[in-house]
Amino acid sequence: MKTIIIGAVAAGAKAAMKLRRLMPDSEITIYTNDTHISYSSCGIPYYIKGDFDDYRELFAKTPEEFENVGINVFLQHKVVKIQPEYNNILVNDIIGEKSFLAEYDNLIIATGARPFVPHIKNINLSKVFSVRSIEDAINIKEALKSAKRAVIVGSGYIGIEMLEAFVSNNVYVDVIEMSETILPYLDSDMSKLIQKELECIADGRFEFHTGKLVSELRGDCDGVKEVITQFGEAYRADLVILATGVIPNVELAIDAGIELGSTGAIKIDKFMRTNFNNVYACGDCAQKMLMISDEPVYIPLGSYASKEGRAVAINISGQNEEYAGILGSTVTKCLDLTISMTGMTETHAIKSGFDAVSYTLTKCDRVGYMPDAENITLKMVADKKSGQILGAQAFGSKYADKKINSLTSALAGKMTVKDFLNNDATYAPPYSTSVDLLYNAALGLLNKIDV
Amino acid sequence: MKTIIIGAVAAGAKAAMKLRRLMPDSEITIYTNDTHISYSSCGIPYYIKGDFDDYRELFAKTPEEFENVGINVFLQHKVVKIQPEYNNILVNDIIGEKSFLAEYDNLIIATGARPFVPHIKNINLSKVFSVRSIEDAINIKEALKSAKRAVIVGSGYIGIEMLEAFVSNNVYVDVIEMSETILPYLDSDMSKLIQKELECIADGRFEFHTGKLVSELRGDCDGVKEVITQFGEAYRADLVILATGVIPNVELAIDAGIELGSTGAIKIDKFMRTNFNNVYACGDCAQKMLMISDEPVYIPLGSYASKEGRAVAINISGQNEEYAGILGSTVTKCLDLTISMTGMTETHAIKSGFDAVSYTLTKCDRVGYMPDAENITLKMVADKKSGQILGAQAFGSKYADKKINSLTSALAGKMTVKDFLNNDATYAPPYSTSVDLLYNAALGLLNKIDV
Repeated sequence: MKTIIIGAVAAGAKAAMKLRRLMPDSEITIYTNDTHISYSSCGIPYYIKGDFDDYRELFAKTPEEFENVGINVFLQHKVVKIQPEYNNILVNDIIGEKSFLAEYDNLIIATGARPFVPHIKNINLSKVFSVRSIEDAINIKEALKSAKRAVIVGSGYIGIEMLEAFVSNNVYVDVIEMSETILPYLDSDMSKLIQKELECIADGRFEFHTGKLVSELRGDCDGVKEVITQFGEAYRADLVILATGVIPNVELAIDAGIELGSTGAIKIDKFMRTNFNNVYACGDCAQKMLMISDEPVYIPLGSYASKEGRAVAINISGQNEEYAGILGSTVTKCLDLTISMTGMTETHAIKSGFDAVSYTLTKCDRVGYMPDAENITLKMVADKKSGQILGAQAFGSKYADKKINSLTSALAGKMTVKDFLNNDATYAPPYSTSVDLLYNAALGLLNKIDV
Repeated sequence: MKTIIIGAVAAGAKAAMKLRRLMPDSEITIYTNDTHISYSSCGIPYYIKGDFDDYRELFAKTPEEFENVGINVFLQHKVVKIQPEYNNILVNDIIGEKSFLAEYDNLIIATGARPFVPHIKNINLSKVFSVRSIEDAINIKEALKSAKRAVIVGSGYIGIEMLEAFVSNNVYVDVIEMSETILPYLDSDMSKLIQKELECIADGRFEFHTGKLVSELRGDCDGVKEVITQFGEAYRADLVILATGVIPNVELAIDAGIELGSTGAIKIDKFMRTNFNNVYACGDCAQKMLMISDEPVYIPLGSYASKEGRAVAINISGQNEEYAGILGSTVTKCLDLTISMTGMTETHAIKSGFDAVSYTLTKCDRVGYMPDAENITLKMVADKKSGQILGAQAFGSKYADKKINSLTSALAGKMTVKDFLNNDATYAPPYSTSVDLLYNAALGLLNKIDV
């Protein structure tokens, strides 16, 4: 049996390795137009920051490790056409300038996502970067050496993480966000609190500019010099980061008649199959189902890539592995602030038709008398009628994400707020308070729901 | 309506305050033979260690704060008899040397627990301490000033936490444990690994001696000098800590015809009632139900006291508040090692009739390339037939307890290992690995169970 995998940053790499273990004798071939496979994009901000010096640390596995277990790896091989009705793909060898057809029994589309590039005048000036590939990482780290000021366009995860990377290297940063609040995927009440916290520790090292659209870049042959907003404001910049989100790489799929979902990513069933029985999709190019509401969402995260790659391999091997979906659990770090969420925001829940209520509180992460006790602010969201917990957002100390992770099982199990009161959290003064923040939040929320 | 509460360290204090809010006009009276109320016993090791200097930090609320909301507080008033058939108690005022009867409509027994004092010759020598009351805390901190060597008898939570407190003050410690492993409430395979880890960082500051029973203390009018085991070995000691567990204060209850459970603690129903309808028990004197198996257990923890006190108050106020029980979730710190568990150990599960299987693994708490990434070792236990997760034990970095807390909802919801694979944990390199330790553990365990 021949399996072809297109793309192998995370999902494709995992699928290949898992399939090798499940079907030792099958033929597995990876084609990618990338120069690298099996790497951690999520680690790029920390490489740029200088938490580690060798970009090769980002590689989970080398191409040789794949070859050593009999997986064929073709780097810089661009797949230009998928023909599901012929079970073949057309591949162009970028370096060798050769073109060939490759046949498959099963095809795995793991083409990932690419940075969304907004419509900005002179976007092609040098020293304007997205943050995605190993090359991006190396180029930004190099440009950083001679930079004094940077502009980051966008304040999602990548924008926020690059902010930390830059100010840690004494580069002043202006963050320009078109939404009215930073971190626009959170509820705006939480985003505003987070922005205030970050501004408190900014100390002249960075500034947020929200509600502003970048319309133009200015510069010369040496690269970008200024970033101009729609209001005509100009921000000086020795380099610019575009952190305006990603879009799934679905052009090959569209061309092949593979259906997309309502989110614009490739539609798959519970068994990771597209509308063609022997064509699977996983990772950042594939649509996800939100477990809480069984609605399609596009939340491309590294943590899903591995699980989805694994599920594809198991299904190809002939076992049935249902992939239940995701909760949209995330964490990001900006300087000393941890920001985390799971499930739906209140805004999202209302849009999805829930009668959403919420409760927000701030409490110490450890008993107040312990040195280093710090605050965590948490907002918990539930459905007023059913009492089902729909999501939570938290920020504060390095334990903020741990509070979120104490809720994820409850969300996956569609537990109610009342159910959650049975959660028995550990307690000792160096680690927590005797009454846990989450218990307080659940009690507060209980007063607002019907059951 | 008159409510009397006997004891007010944690459960009684919470019951009083909650009842005051629910029933603003009712009469609430606290009697305790203690000199303090509403304090954090759990914080005593950190006061002794020196994490904070003023023992008053341990007080959650002062007697005045209770009096200010109209709760009568009688310190150093010893209740010597409960007469459920007359709805009264006999109280002796220790200081005033007066004796009187007090009548109640509802009685809350929150008499707590006391240190178990093993049968050891010369146990009454001075500089031999238990760790329970504020007086203990003050006396140990004073004795520590002139001490060079200490012996800690017992290696449960308190023993392990006092070890940290002493070595942090440059006092050498011998820990003598009668079981074959330290932390005997864990599975012995985990205890052995933990002991090895701690011995690696001991650096001549402490030593464990397991499988040894203390039979005798030797000393003079200045206090204890030596601790002698049943094998005749002698350990020099300027002070001795007895950390050999606690026993519930149930003598009053027994005398009054209040039923005990099989664990020796006061038997209560889901509404916190004893066999007398208007007599409730909560906190360290009360038996708990283990949610996983609905079996009675005696696990006296501060985190339960508050929840149980709250439940008692709600039930007295006329609402029905069922208290589902506990999971036995704990965390303790010993120097740089975090040790945590929830639910049943494998040993416990087998004893309780489960067909228990387990999976143990060690993994970085963050992505390996991040500075400060450290290991966590986790053992997950499940029932082979049903796949129900029964418990977990973990040790390692300061995030070890956070892994345990990511499981507690799953345990409370009686989830299976397969259910738990739907848990969607957050991921970013500074906080976790892209495939979470718990997900790896669940996958490993899945291979060992039938469903």
